[in-house]
Amino acid sequence: MNYRLVCRLLSIVCLIIGVTMVFSLPWAWPAIGHRTDENFQQFETHGFLGLVYSILLSIICWAILWRIGRKAKGELYRREAMAIVGLSWIVATVLGALPYLLSGSSNKIAVRLFEHQDHAPQIYGDEVSPLTMAEYAVVKPLVRAGAKGLSREALKEQYQATYAVITKGEAPKQNYGEVFEELRELPHWRSALIAPGEDPHAPLDRSEHYRIRPVPMNIADAIFESQSGFSTTGATVIADLEDPISLPHCVLFWRSSTHFLGGLGIIVLFVVILGQGSAGKALMRNEIPGPSKEGSHSRMQHTAWTFAGLYCGLNLVLTILLWILGMNVFDAICHAFGTLATGGFSTYNSSLGHFYQVDPVSGAWIEYVVILFMTVAGTNFTLLFFLMIGQAHRLVADIEWRYYMGIIVGVTIIVMAFGMVYDDFIVDPETSAVSEFFFALRYGLFQVVSVITTTGYGTHDFDQWNSFGRGVLFLLMFVGGCAGSTGGGVKVIRHILFHKILFLQLEKSYHPSVVRPLRLGGKPVDDPDLQNNILIYFSLILVLFVFGWMAVVTFEPDLTWGTTEEHIEHKLIDSATAVAATLNNVGPGLGIIGATQNYANFTWWTKLLFTALMMIGRLEIFAVLVLFMPRFWRSR
Amino acid sequence: MNYRLVCRLLSIVCLIIGVTMVFSLPWAWPAIGHRTDENFQQFETHGFLGLVYSILLSIICWAILWRIGRKAKGELYRREAMAIVGLSWIVATVLGALPYLLSGSSNKIAVRLFEHQDHAPQIYGDEVSPLTMAEYAVVKPLVRAGAKGLSREALKEQYQATYAVITKGEAPKQNYGEVFEELRELPHWRSALIAPGEDPHAPLDRSEHYRIRPVPMNIADAIFESQSGFSTTGATVIADLEDPISLPHCVLFWRSSTHFLGGLGIIVLFVVILGQGSAGKALMRNEIPGPSKEGSHSRMQHTAWTFAGLYCGLNLVLTILLWILGMNVFDAICHAFGTLATGGFSTYNSSLGHFYQVDPVSGAWIEYVVILFMTVAGTNFTLLFFLMIGQAHRLVADIEWRYYMGIIVGVTIIVMAFGMVYDDFIVDPETSAVSEFFFALRYGLFQVVSVITTTGYGTHDFDQWNSFGRGVLFLLMFVGGCAGSTGGGVKVIRHILFHKILFLQLEKSYHPSVVRPLRLGGKPVDDPDLQNNILIYFSLILVLFVFGWMAVVTFEPDLTWGTTEEHIEHKLIDSATAVAATLNNVGPGLGIIGATQNYANFTWWTKLLFTALMMIGRLEIFAVLVLFMPRFWRSR
Repeated sequence: MNYRLVCRLLSIVCLIIGVTMVFSLPWAWPAIGHRTDENFQQFETHGFLGLVYSILLSIICWAILWRIGRKAKGELYRREAMAIVGLSWIVATVLGALPYLLSGSSNKIAVRLFEHQDHAPQIYGDEVSPLTMAEYAVVKPLVRAGAKGLSREALKEQYQATYAVITKGEAPKQNYGEVFEELRELPHWRSALIAPGEDPHAPLDRSEHYRIRPVPMNIADAIFESQSGFSTTGATVIADLEDPISLPHCVLFWRSSTHFLGGLGIIVLFVVILGQGSAGKALMRNEIPGPSKEGSHSRMQHTAWTFAGLYCGLNLVLTILLWILGMNVFDAICHAFGTLATGGFSTYNSSLGHFYQVDPVSGAWIEYVVILFMTVAGTNFTLLFFLMIGQAHRLVADIEWRYYMGIIVGVTIIVMAFGMVYDDFIVDPETSAVSEFFFALRYGLFQVVSVITTTGYGTHDFDQWNSFGRGVLFLLMFVGGCAGSTGGGVKVIRHILFHKILFLQLEKSYHPSVVRPLRLGGKPVDDPDLQNNILIYFSLILVLFVFGWMAVVTFEPDLTWGTTEEHIEHKLIDSATAVAATLNNVGPGLGIIGATQNYANFTWWTKLLFTALMMIGRLEIFAVLVLFMPRFWRSR
Repeated sequence: MNYRLVCRLLSIVCLIIGVTMVFSLPWAWPAIGHRTDENFQQFETHGFLGLVYSILLSIICWAILWRIGRKAKGELYRREAMAIVGLSWIVATVLGALPYLLSGSSNKIAVRLFEHQDHAPQIYGDEVSPLTMAEYAVVKPLVRAGAKGLSREALKEQYQATYAVITKGEAPKQNYGEVFEELRELPHWRSALIAPGEDPHAPLDRSEHYRIRPVPMNIADAIFESQSGFSTTGATVIADLEDPISLPHCVLFWRSSTHFLGGLGIIVLFVVILGQGSAGKALMRNEIPGPSKEGSHSRMQHTAWTFAGLYCGLNLVLTILLWILGMNVFDAICHAFGTLATGGFSTYNSSLGHFYQVDPVSGAWIEYVVILFMTVAGTNFTLLFFLMIGQAHRLVADIEWRYYMGIIVGVTIIVMAFGMVYDDFIVDPETSAVSEFFFALRYGLFQVVSVITTTGYGTHDFDQWNSFGRGVLFLLMFVGGCAGSTGGGVKVIRHILFHKILFLQLEKSYHPSVVRPLRLGGKPVDDPDLQNNILIYFSLILVLFVFGWMAVVTFEPDLTWGTTEEHIEHKLIDSATAVAATLNNVGPGLGIIGATQNYANFTWWTKLLFTALMMIGRLEIFAVLVLFMPRFWRSR
C-alpha cells in the first residue's frame, strides 16, 4: 500500500471540507440566515465559533496529511483508489461531525413520554416510575413545547386542558406549580426540569419559561448526522430542527452542505474512478462523454468536470425555483441540496410537508417541483448530459431509465389504488372523491419517488398507510435510483440484470449445454464478470441486511420502543426498516423511525452501526468492507 | 420431451400412493386405531369409505398412465428427470388430497371469535355485527368446545362463568337458551349454530349438544394439507385434530403417512437422481456408498436401497422407543413419521407438548428422544450410513455436520440466555432458578432443533418469547438441515459455501488478478459451476421470499387477522414468517400461524400460494419453476 499517496489525496478532502464550512458562516447573522417567521433572533455565537474551530481543525488535518504525503511517488492502483474512497468518506464524516459537537447543539430534550400516563416515561434514556395524572398533565405540554418551554400562563392553560382530556372532563385538584415542584423533589426529574428564571444565561425567549433541559449531541449523534449527510441518507437524530438555540442556522446550513458534498463526491468519485472497472463500465454505459474513447486520464477529468457542472447547475436551478415558489433563500438552498443529492435533510420538523401546512397552493407546487427534481436526481447523469446536449431520444431509449420510470408510475398507481380502498388519503370526513384522488396522487407519487430515489423527504405520515402500502415502500427502499445518479439503493439496472440472470439460469437447469448471452436492450452484454458481480452484490446486501437487522434486534434494548408486551412485533419491523433505510441511504423507515419520528432514541452503539451501514451502502459495499480486512493493508 | 416415458414413471407414483393408503384402512376400527382416553368410539365409516374411494382413484390413475406409457422408449435425460420429479410431486399431492375430501373431514368450525366482544366475529369467513356481552358469553364456550359442542348443563355453567368474567362479576340477566335462540334469528348465525336434537344423524357424543357447525375441508384445504405432508412441511389447516368425527383416525394416519412418503421420496429422488448433477455431486460428497465409483446405474440403485432401508429402520426404532415411553402404537408411528421426515404433523392440537401435559416425566423423555431423532433426520444420510458401518470418525470430521451441530449448540445457548433474561421460560411465579434453567434448556433446545431441521413440532408457545428469540427462530428457518437429509431449508453446506464465496469476492475486489480456489474442509472445490449455483440458489430464495411475502400482504385481506388499527404490523410480520415457514418446509411461523395457531383462516388462494411455495422449497426450486416455462416443454 502506498500510504504517502493515500495521505496526499486525503489531504485534499480535508481542504474541501474546511473551505465548504466557510460558506456556512454567514448564516450565523440574523439578517441573512434567519427565517422571517421567527420572533426571536440574535447572532449565533455558539454556532459561529463551533464552525470556526471546525474549519481550523480541518486545516490542521490538511496540513498534517499534506506534510506526510508531500513526497508521494508512484501511480494510483486499484487498491489505493479503493482505500482513498473508503478513507476519504471516514475523514469527511469525522470532520463533518465537528460543528455539531463544537457548537454544543442539542438533539432532543431529556424527557420522553409515551401515549399513556401509566407507561413509565424515560429521562436521559432511563425508565423512571410512572407519573400520576396531574404530573402527566404538567409534563406532556412541556414535552410538546420542546426546548423552548412554556410561560407560566401557557403552562397553566395547557395543564388544565390536558388534565381535562385524560380524566374526561374533571378539573385538576392541584395547582400546576405544586405539581412541578413535587416532581422536582425526585432525583431523576430534578436534573431534567428547569424552573423560570433559574438559568440567567438562557436566551431571552426562554429564560422565564418552565422547560425541560435539552440534551447536547454526543459523539455518536454527531458522527451519525454527519455520515447521514455525506452518504445522502437524510436520517436524522435531531428531534427539533426549528429551534435556533438547540441547532443554530449556520450549523443547520452545514448539515445540508454535507448533502451537497456527498452527492458531488458520489457523482465524481463513482462515475470517474470506480465506474472504470470492467463491470462498472457495463453499468455506466460505454459512452461516457469525453474527448477520447479509451477512458484515458484526460477523458476522466473531462467527464468529472462535466458532471460536477451539471450537478451544480441543477442545484442552482432548483434553488431559484423554490425561492420563486415562496421559500426564503436559506430554505431554498438547503432543500435544493437535499433534493439533488437525494439526501432528504430538511430544515423543518415536518420535512417538506411544512410548506403545504403554511400555504397549500405554493406548498403543493413546491412538492410537484421537488418530485420532478428528485426524479432527475435519480437518473443517470450520462443521460442528463445527453438531454442537455439535445439528444433526448437517448434518454428515452435507455432501458434502465424506462424501467425506472415504469416502476415509479406503476407503483404509484397501485399505492394510490390501495390507499384509496383503505381510505388512507382521506384527511377529513368531508373529503370528496375527486379531492381524495388528488390527495392520493400527490401523497402517493411524492412518497414513491422520495423512497425509490432514496431521498426520504416526507409530506405525509405514511406510517398510517395500510400494510400493503407500507410493505411496498419497504421494498422500494431496495430498488434505488439509476446507476450513475446520486440515488442510493441497489440501483434499477442491477435489478434488471438480476432477473435476467435468474431466468437464464432456470433455462440452464434443464439445458446445461445451451449458452445464451445476457442481453440488455437487445445488445448482448459480453462481460463474463458482470453476472458474478451482480449476484455477489445482491448476496452482500442480503447478508448485511440480515446481520444488521439481527444486531439491532439483539443489542437495542426494548426500552427504546418503550412499548408494552403486545407491541413486541414493532421492534422486529422497525429494526428491519431502520437497517434497510440506512443501508440504502433512504432515511426514514416505519414505526419509531417513521415519517414523523427520528433516530434520536437509539443507543449510541446502534447509531454507530447505522453509520457504518450508511457508509457501506453509499460506497457500494466493497470500498468499505475491504478496509476491515488486514490482508488488504498488508499485501502489495 | 419424451411424454410416454414420463407417464410410465408417473404411473409408479400413483401405484405407491394407492398401496400406501391401504395401510391407513385398519385404523378405522376402534379397537386398533383409537386412542384409549376417548370415551366415544365407533367404526369410522366416512373415513374408511373415503380412503377406499381414494385407493380406487389412484389405481385408475395408475392404469391410465401405465397404458399411455406402455410403449415408452428412449433414455431418461436430465429434462425428463426434472419433469418427473416435479410432476410426481403434483400427482402425489392431488391423490393425497382425496382422502380429506372424500371422507368429508372438517378443518374448523364456522365461527371465529376475537379477544373482545366489541370486535366483530367471523362466520364462514365473513365479518358480522359485534356481539352483546350475553351473546359473547354464549358463543365463547361453544367456540372453545369445538365441533363436539356442549351439553345443556355445561353450556349453562360456562355461560355464567364467562359472563361473570367479562362483566367483572355480574350475574347474567338472560337465560343462555334465550340468548342462543335470539342469535339464531340472525341470518348468518342460523346456518352456523345447531341446537340439541336438531340433527338426528349426528353421532351420539354430540347429538344432544349445543354446537357450532364444522366446515368441511374445501379443495384448497385438502391440497394444502396433502402438499404440507409430502413436502414434510407440517403446516396444517386443521384446527382440531383430536375430534375423530371431524377428522377420522384413519385419515389422520394417512396424513402422517404422507410425511413418511415425502421423506422417503426426497431421500431416494434427490440422493440418487438430482445428486448426480455436477454441483449436486459436490454437495452430496463424492463418496456415496455403492459397488462402483462411477455413479453407474447399479450403484445408484444400491445407494437408493441402502438409504431407503436406513430411513425405514430409523422410523422403526423411533416408533418402538416412543411406544416404550408410553405412547400408544398409533401415536408412536405417527410421531415417528413426523420426526424422521422432519415433517411435524402431530396427532394432537398441542403438538408434541401434549405428552408433557399428560405426564411431565415421560413427556420430557419423549421430547429429548425426539430432539435426538430430529437431529439425526437433519444429518446427511451418507454420514448416517458411515456411522452405521462403524466409521463414526467420518461423521465427526464432516465440515457441514460440525457447523450444523455448532449452530444448534450456539443458537440454543443464546436463545436460553436471552429467554432467561426476559423471563420467557418462567411458567409460574414460584419457578426456581435451577428449574428455570432446565425449562430453558428443554424448550430452547427443542425449538431450535425443531426449526433448524425444519420439523416444526412445538412444545411451547414461542410466540411469547422476546423479539430476539423470535427473530432468531425466523432466521433459523432459512438455515435448514444438512444436504442429503430429509430436512428442508437452504441447507447448512450452502450457507458455508456462500460465506466463503463472499469473502473470496471481497478479496478479489482489490486484487482482481489473484485466483484463490474455494476450499471446503481444507480441500479445494474445483467445480466451476458450484459458486454460480450457490449464488443463484440464494438469489432465487430471496426473490421467491420477497414476491411471496408481497403477494400475501397484498391479496390476503386484513380481515384474516381481524385486528384493530394498531395491530397492522402483525400482518407484515406474520405474512413474512408464513412465507418463510412454507418455503423452507418448517410449518409454524409467528403470530396467527404461531405455535398454538394454524393456517385454517387464510383464504383459499393464499393457501394455494403456500402450497406452491412448499413444493418449490422441497424440490429445491428448479424442478418446479421449469414446469411453468413453455420452452421447457417445447424444445427437444
